[in-house]
Amino acid sequence: MTTILKLGGSVITEKDTPETVDEAALTGATDAIADSGVEDLVIVHGGGSFGHHHANRYGVSATSGTSDAAGVYAIHDAMRRLDDAVVAALQSAGVPAVPVDPFSVASRDEDGKTTLPTDGIERIRGEGFVPVLFGDVVVQTGVGATILSGDEIAVMLARSLSADRIGLCSSVPGVLDDSGTVIDRIDEFGAVAAAVGNSEATDVTGGMAGKVQALLDVSTPASIFGPDALSAFLGGERPGTLIGGGE
Amino acid sequence: MTTILKLGGSVITEKDTPETVDEAALTGATDAIADSGVEDLVIVHGGGSFGHHHANRYGVSATSGTSDAAGVYAIHDAMRRLDDAVVAALQSAGVPAVPVDPFSVASRDEDGKTTLPTDGIERIRGEGFVPVLFGDVVVQTGVGATILSGDEIAVMLARSLSADRIGLCSSVPGVLDDSGTVIDRIDEFGAVAAAVGNSEATDVTGGMAGKVQALLDVSTPASIFGPDALSAFLGGERPGTLIGGGE
Repeated sequence: MTTILKLGGSVITEKDTPETVDEAALTGATDAIADSGVEDLVIVHGGGSFGHHHANRYGVSATSGTSDAAGVYAIHDAMRRLDDAVVAALQSAGVPAVPVDPFSVASRDEDGKTTLPTDGIERIRGEGFVPVLFGDVVVQTGVGATILSGDEIAVMLARSLSADRIGLCSSVPGVLDDSGTVIDRIDEFGAVAAAVGNSEATDVTGGMAGKVQALLDVSTPASIFGPDALSAFLGGERPGTLIGGGE
Repeated sequence: MTTILKLGGSVITEKDTPETVDEAALTGATDAIADSGVEDLVIVHGGGSFGHHHANRYGVSATSGTSDAAGVYAIHDAMRRLDDAVVAALQSAGVPAVPVDPFSVASRDEDGKTTLPTDGIERIRGEGFVPVLFGDVVVQTGVGATILSGDEIAVMLARSLSADRIGLCSSVPGVLDDSGTVIDRIDEFGAVAAAVGNSEATDVTGGMAGKVQALLDVSTPASIFGPDALSAFLGGERPGTLIGGGE
C-alpha cells in the first residue's frame, strides 16, 4: 500500500511572512505521520512563503523561465531550506525521512513535458527511507528553468510508483462548492467547473481547478483535506473531497 | 570540448578544521575557472573537512553503509553546505553554476555498481548552466547508504558525457614518484604501483592509487595537478601528471 502525501505550502509555512515555517502546523503534521505508522510513504511539499516570492522576483512560473543561474539558485535554495525544516521535523518525530532534490532529478522538454525518473526513489524506499520531495525549479529546454509544483510531482509519483492513494493536505477542508460546503466526491470536471473555476491553464501550481483536473487524470484515488483530517487520511479514511480513482 | 573538473576537498577546505572553507583557495579556483572562459564544463568537488568527519562518526565509507536516516542526512547536509559555498563562489566569479545533488540522482545496486543518470545533467548543460556535483552519500541496496566519492563521480561523468578532458585539481602537483618528483605520464598501473602504493581496494575515495587506477579505466585523458596549475589546465595545457587517454 503506497501512499503519496503532499503537504501544502500554505499548511506548513506562514503565508504572509517570507520564509517562515509554521512550526506548530509542521509538527502537527509530522507527528500525525509518525503516529500513523504508515511506512510505505513518499512525501512531497509545496513552497508556501519560501519559494513564491523568489519565483516572483525572478519572473519564473510553470511556463515562464529564467536563464539566470542566480535566480535558479535563489528559488531552489529557499525551497531546500524549507525542505530541511520538513526533513528535520520528520526525523525528530521518528520518520526516517531523507531529502530528494527535484531540480537534480527532473527535467522538462521544450513542450513542457516533465520527466521525473524514479529509479533512485525506488531504491531509497527499498532501504526503508521515506523520500521527501518538494516544489522546485526544473530545467526546461529552450527557456532555462521553470517551476515544477509539488502537486505536479505528487501526480507524477502516483503514476510512476503505481501508488494506491494520494493525499493532498491543504489549508482548506476539501474542494468547496458555491456555498462553501465540502464536495464529497468528484468524478468528472464538468460537474464542479462552476464551483472551482476556470481550468484552461493546465498549470497545476495554481488553484483548485488545476489540482482537480490533474488528479482526475491519474487512476490513483486522491483525497483533498485539511490539516485536522491528516490522521484520518493516514488511518485509511477518506476525509474531505475524494477525487477520481474510478471506483 | 567537454571538460570535467574535479576540485579536491583538500584544496578548497581547511583540512584540519571541521567544516571550514579555505576561502582564498576556493576564490583562486573559481576565478581561474571564470577567467579561462571554458564554458562546456562540469564541476565536481570532494568533501575535505566537511563530509569526512560525519562519515567517520556514522561509520560510513564507500563499502560500509548506514540505515540511519539521521546519519545519511548529516553527511549529505554537510556536503551540501560546502557545495553552497562552491556554487556561490562560482556565481560571484561569473560562472552560471547550479547544484546537482548526487544523493538524489545516483544509486548503487547490491554489488556496489553505481548508476548516475545524466539526462538531467545534459539538459542543464544544454541551457548554458554549469552543473556542480560533489562527493556524497548514495543509497545502496541492502546496506542503506554508502559514500560516493567526487573522484568516482568525475570518472562516471567522463564516461557518460564522452568528455574530452578530466582535470583533478589536487593538493599535490601530480602523482609523485619515490623521490617526490612529479611523474609526467602514466599509461599502466604496474609502472607506478611501487610509488603510489597498493590499490587492492578499488575504493576511489582514498589515496592516489585508487585515483590512478580509476582514471586508467576510462578512455578520457586525465591530468592530476596542483592548484597553481589550474589555469594552465583550463588553458589547454597538461600540467602535473597525465594519465591514460591512449595517445
